[in-house]
Amino acid sequence: MAEFNTNLRLKLPLICIILEVILIILFGVFVKYDSETDSRLWHEELTHHNKSNYDNDFYFRYPSFQDVHVMIFIGFGFLMTFLQRYGFSSVGFNFLIAAFSLQWATLMQGFFHGMHGGKIHVGVESMINADFCTGSVLISFGAVLGKTSPVQLLLMAVIEVTLFAINEYIILSVLGAKDAGGSMTIHTFGAYFGLVVARVLYRPQLDKSKSRNCSVYHSDLFAMIGTIYLWMFWPSFNSAITAHGDDQHRTAMNTYYSLASCTLATFAISSLVNHEGKLDMVHVQNAALAGGVAVGTAGEMMLTPLGSMIVGFLAGTISTLGFKYLSPILEEKLHIQDTCGVHNLHGMPGILGAIVGAVTASLASSEIYGDGMMEVFPDIYSGEINAASQGVRQAISLGVTLGFAAVGGIITGFLLKLSIYGSPPDTMCYEDGIYWEMPGEEESHQELAAVRTEEVEKPLNG
Amino acid sequence: MAEFNTNLRLKLPLICIILEVILIILFGVFVKYDSETDSRLWHEELTHHNKSNYDNDFYFRYPSFQDVHVMIFIGFGFLMTFLQRYGFSSVGFNFLIAAFSLQWATLMQGFFHGMHGGKIHVGVESMINADFCTGSVLISFGAVLGKTSPVQLLLMAVIEVTLFAINEYIILSVLGAKDAGGSMTIHTFGAYFGLVVARVLYRPQLDKSKSRNCSVYHSDLFAMIGTIYLWMFWPSFNSAITAHGDDQHRTAMNTYYSLASCTLATFAISSLVNHEGKLDMVHVQNAALAGGVAVGTAGEMMLTPLGSMIVGFLAGTISTLGFKYLSPILEEKLHIQDTCGVHNLHGMPGILGAIVGAVTASLASSEIYGDGMMEVFPDIYSGEINAASQGVRQAISLGVTLGFAAVGGIITGFLLKLSIYGSPPDTMCYEDGIYWEMPGEEESHQELAAVRTEEVEKPLNG
Amino acid sequence: MAEFNTNLRLKLPLICIILEVILIILFGVFVKYDSETDSRLWHEELTHHNKSNYDNDFYFRYPSFQDVHVMIFIGFGFLMTFLQRYGFSSVGFNFLIAAFSLQWATLMQGFFHGMHGGKIHVGVESMINADFCTGSVLISFGAVLGKTSPVQLLLMAVIEVTLFAINEYIILSVLGAKDAGGSMTIHTFGAYFGLVVARVLYRPQLDKSKSRNCSVYHSDLFAMIGTIYLWMFWPSFNSAITAHGDDQHRTAMNTYYSLASCTLATFAISSLVNHEGKLDMVHVQNAALAGGVAVGTAGEMMLTPLGSMIVGFLAGTISTLGFKYLSPILEEKLHIQDTCGVHNLHGMPGILGAIVGAVTASLASSEIYGDGMMEVFPDIYSGEINAASQGVRQAISLGVTLGFAAVGGIITGFLLKLSIYGSPPDTMCYEDGIYWEMPGEEESHQELAAVRTEEVEKPLNG
Repeated sequence: MAEFNTNLRLKLPLICIILEVILIILFGVFVKYDSETDSRLWHEELTHHNKSNYDNDFYFRYPSFQDVHVMIFIGFGFLMTFLQRYGFSSVGFNFLIAAFSLQWATLMQGFFHGMHGGKIHVGVESMINADFCTGSVLISFGAVLGKTSPVQLLLMAVIEVTLFAINEYIILSVLGAKDAGGSMTIHTFGAYFGLVVARVLYRPQLDKSKSRNCSVYHSDLFAMIGTIYLWMFWPSFNSAITAHGDDQHRTAMNTYYSLASCTLATFAISSLVNHEGKLDMVHVQNAALAGGVAVGTAGEMMLTPLGSMIVGFLAGTISTLGFKYLSPILEEKLHIQDTCGVHNLHGMPGILGAIVGAVTASLASSEIYGDGMMEVFPDIYSGEINAASQGVRQAISLGVTLGFAAVGGIITGFLLKLSIYGSPPDTMCYEDGIYWEMPGEEESHQELAAVRTEEVEKPLNG
Repeated sequence: MAEFNTNLRLKLPLICIILEVILIILFGVFVKYDSETDSRLWHEELTHHNKSNYDNDFYFRYPSFQDVHVMIFIGFGFLMTFLQRYGFSSVGFNFLIAAFSLQWATLMQGFFHGMHGGKIHVGVESMINADFCTGSVLISFGAVLGKTSPVQLLLMAVIEVTLFAINEYIILSVLGAKDAGGSMTIHTFGAYFGLVVARVLYRPQLDKSKSRNCSVYHSDLFAMIGTIYLWMFWPSFNSAITAHGDDQHRTAMNTYYSLASCTLATFAISSLVNHEGKLDMVHVQNAALAGGVAVGTAGEMMLTPLGSMIVGFLAGTISTLGFKYLSPILEEKLHIQDTCGVHNLHGMPGILGAIVGAVTASLASSEIYGDGMMEVFPDIYSGEINAASQGVRQAISLGVTLGFAAVGGIITGFLLKLSIYGSPPDTMCYEDGIYWEMPGEEESHQELAAVRTEEVEKPLNG
Repeated sequence: MAEFNTNLRLKLPLICIILEVILIILFGVFVKYDSETDSRLWHEELTHHNKSNYDNDFYFRYPSFQDVHVMIFIGFGFLMTFLQRYGFSSVGFNFLIAAFSLQWATLMQGFFHGMHGGKIHVGVESMINADFCTGSVLISFGAVLGKTSPVQLLLMAVIEVTLFAINEYIILSVLGAKDAGGSMTIHTFGAYFGLVVARVLYRPQLDKSKSRNCSVYHSDLFAMIGTIYLWMFWPSFNSAITAHGDDQHRTAMNTYYSLASCTLATFAISSLVNHEGKLDMVHVQNAALAGGVAVGTAGEMMLTPLGSMIVGFLAGTISTLGFKYLSPILEEKLHIQDTCGVHNLHGMPGILGAIVGAVTASLASSEIYGDGMMEVFPDIYSGEINAASQGVRQAISLGVTLGFAAVGGIITGFLLKLSIYGSPPDTMCYEDGIYWEMPGEEESHQELAAVRTEEVEKPLNG
């Protein structure tokens, strides 16, 4: 059947080259160094604004950027290597679609909320924002992992990045909501977008690939590299784009406490729901991260360590229970085949994060925030709105995000359903071999041992 | 026998939830944002002390914090994955007890030396200190690796963190010793605490698990991830909490030279003590790090690159020889079953570091330190004591640390000896399967190859 | 035959100890803390130059240094673990020769362009420069991987570091060329040096080890850890040593765009040149990095995002085509056995980078650079030369570098050809077992399963 021609020899090169050429042209037309990266402009700032080279935002954002970058490429990439025969695709396609998305996101985010005199100005902030947007594509990737070709994934990225930028613009710039760590814009959006795509691409015969839809010992260890990096650098993620000073400092710390608490909840619930009390690697790899998602909105607010820990504990609990009880229902009843369980790691904790953000915002007072209100809630500070209204803004933003994710996911899903993209047949999902040249298997132990005994010892006796 | 009921279904959830609830309550009562993370307080500083957001300590400590964080979760976690069937537990339990310990340490260190008006103030410094304390628990974990249940490990952490905080308080605040990188407080304390616990938990029948107490090819490579991260970021570890400016800069550089020199010593001695001149992965994974431990105290002093390299060379030599000759004696004669050889990596190099610190301190002079004496040795600077006395302080601190480690280890050991914690039977040590749901094994090569040949080619012909 | 006595019991310890003792003596005689790490000197700066501890260069260079450090030890180390039975040597020897080279480079770079009153001053800048020089040794290591003993590698490092420092001095200080990210000094030099060494050490019978000169599934995943870290931190590498402010910021961003574009080119060409359209891990692991190499010279210039993306696209294309078509020719016709394909990743992209640098420099104008010209091209700024001349300088520097690499490689190759260094016989190349104690193989699945079933369940029933 032509439907399952998985030979990508023309399709993949074509889409990669076309996309990159479009990117290069659009960058040529629209993109300019900002005043912190442009040689002439920065030196004018030095002269006219009495600045020093050490004031360049590079020094205050770049370490955060690098941590985020590690999460995107190592964190997401290795987290998905848990499948026994899909490690090449997990790390490799993650690499490909992230490299594309960060370029495309620079343009889309620029078009929708970063144009200056017809030009998009780029610097470390745009780099962080582009990586953030890329994160949401990778979350959606998790939902369809193993069932899609790289051509499909690139197409998905084209649409998802675009909608991400629009949704982000509406929420942050039009509605005036806050969402520095992206509980809504990144996690909720990415998760439900991906889940809807997965629903549209439902494969009733996916059981035929069941034997490959599980981990082996070492693949689980590779996945833990991803998990631990995500966990460690989540404080940098949530704080990467907040205001300088106390905001960034507080956001990082709130996330740190939320994650620590979340980890204990995850281990507790994972053991509790297993009839032998055994821990499940899937839970540890994923649910322990939910604490980072759940403080993505409120992390920059005066959530307090106490609040962060409670949120983290809830997130870990919900997420682990989701993996155990909800995922099977989603698959059987709603026909959503969510490979990585992104609903549990990003979906529900994202919604939780949005709610926590709305509640925390509605409790803001000048007693608690002092002049810092200016940076966290500028519209409350200016007196334009009160705290309750800010809470309402946050809540509306969650609804908008869910709407964008659903509509975008449906459109994307139906587009990807076309049989021209080289997607794998039901019998060959979760299998690297259809898209990658596979290495041979290791020589058998006996052979190697024989070789070693024979050949090493000869020279040694020589 | 009830003694070896390793089903943790109630025990592990219970202890995790109880501990986290206690943490949450105590955080609610005692913990407050410090003046660099609190919105109102920081903005008061901005206004009244003519500060800028760029002066927030976040920018001067957070990159170091993240490096330390990587050492704690990736470094220690993966270093211990060298065992063939204990990778899940190594990374997983490391993750669990570290997530707990850093919260508990925040409270204990706060109680003993960080109370301000009845409140514990938290910020990036408390985060680094909490990670440091966690490090010592993970060192002890290395000594009992494979022979303890996560319930035992959490209990151990409760006690060890508490004693760590007291010992740290006595040494640094009461005795006035210096130990920025923790040769004494972290390494010596953690190692001997763990060794004493291991002694009390001695298992005469441990031979029954011998087949699992060794590495396989890929587990050794996973362990090298841990080793290399520890090695690379050790300069950040030792300098994370020193005074800003030259102190931090110098400490990082001394550690860098010590480690480089240590690595050459390790390779040299490892090859020398093998009758075929072959290198031993155990040495490379561990002894090459001893140089970081051994400049944990003197690193911030004017040790000079020369001094650092000599200390590193000694540390690598001692450590490798320890693995080769001392560890077997410790096990046979003293009945200390030290799974990771923490005596060689943290114990002896920690004591060496304490001695080097005492000697270097006693050589301090205002000619060498200039006004920097103020930050390295404030009591010498103020004239309160002379350099020799500072050396004595350092030496006494080593003794105090060893005392705390021994007494704490004995108490903890006997507590953990109770048969109610689900520890593994002698026949099932070093085995993930008793605490973790294990994934299936990879499909046999033939099967997979058959599947690939058959099913991939069909669609391609389609 | 004595020629293949691979027992290193005396040779390796001897060379390690002799080298480290020489290093220690020379450090004792020549090396001093610089004014940012020395306690007295820094505090004099504080007093007399109205500086603050926060002005210490540590805060503006150390995060970049750590990223570079990760590239050297994790990036290069794990990239080379792709071979099925050479992971210990890849990470291990990488570790050893890097630890040596960074010390030796500190001295050599100091001697040739960093002496102050007969002393070499060290601080974070010298640490970065030493790591850079180490990088070029590791590139050469890639060319001879699997065919050389650690004794040979250390000798190679002694010579290569020395020549690197001389070449760097001539290019940067005498000729006045710019090469902040080392397209010429690091990549071109390291690659061609290594290729010439590999040519001299040509093994006509290397086919006898062919079965081991390939990857297995998990070794390719380990290698991807190296690749991704190199990819992520290359922006930090290229910008680590540029001038502070816009320079560093711009260099990082140019590299980021070049790499992203390069990745799409690599996937496109890799699929295109495979008759089934399948991707090749070798390309993804290596060619996707060529974009970083190719902006190593021009990255700090006003290359623009557009220019960076075009260069990256070209680099990825050339590099992938090189792996596919050129490497076999080099081996068959020119007898260059280039294990890692460094010609494709560092050689050709390095030359491309040098050319791009020359062209970009020759287009410099004060309109584009403003006062920033002062930092990027001081001699153009001062009016000493014009942009075209700067371009010529750059081009000459490429020639000088190639000359140094060729002559150095020949000398080194013939020196290493002597049969006294324990190099492996043709039948035992790419084999850890000759230099490392090898762990046993994992217990067979059946055995383990049996053990688990039998022994775990017993205690649970107890």
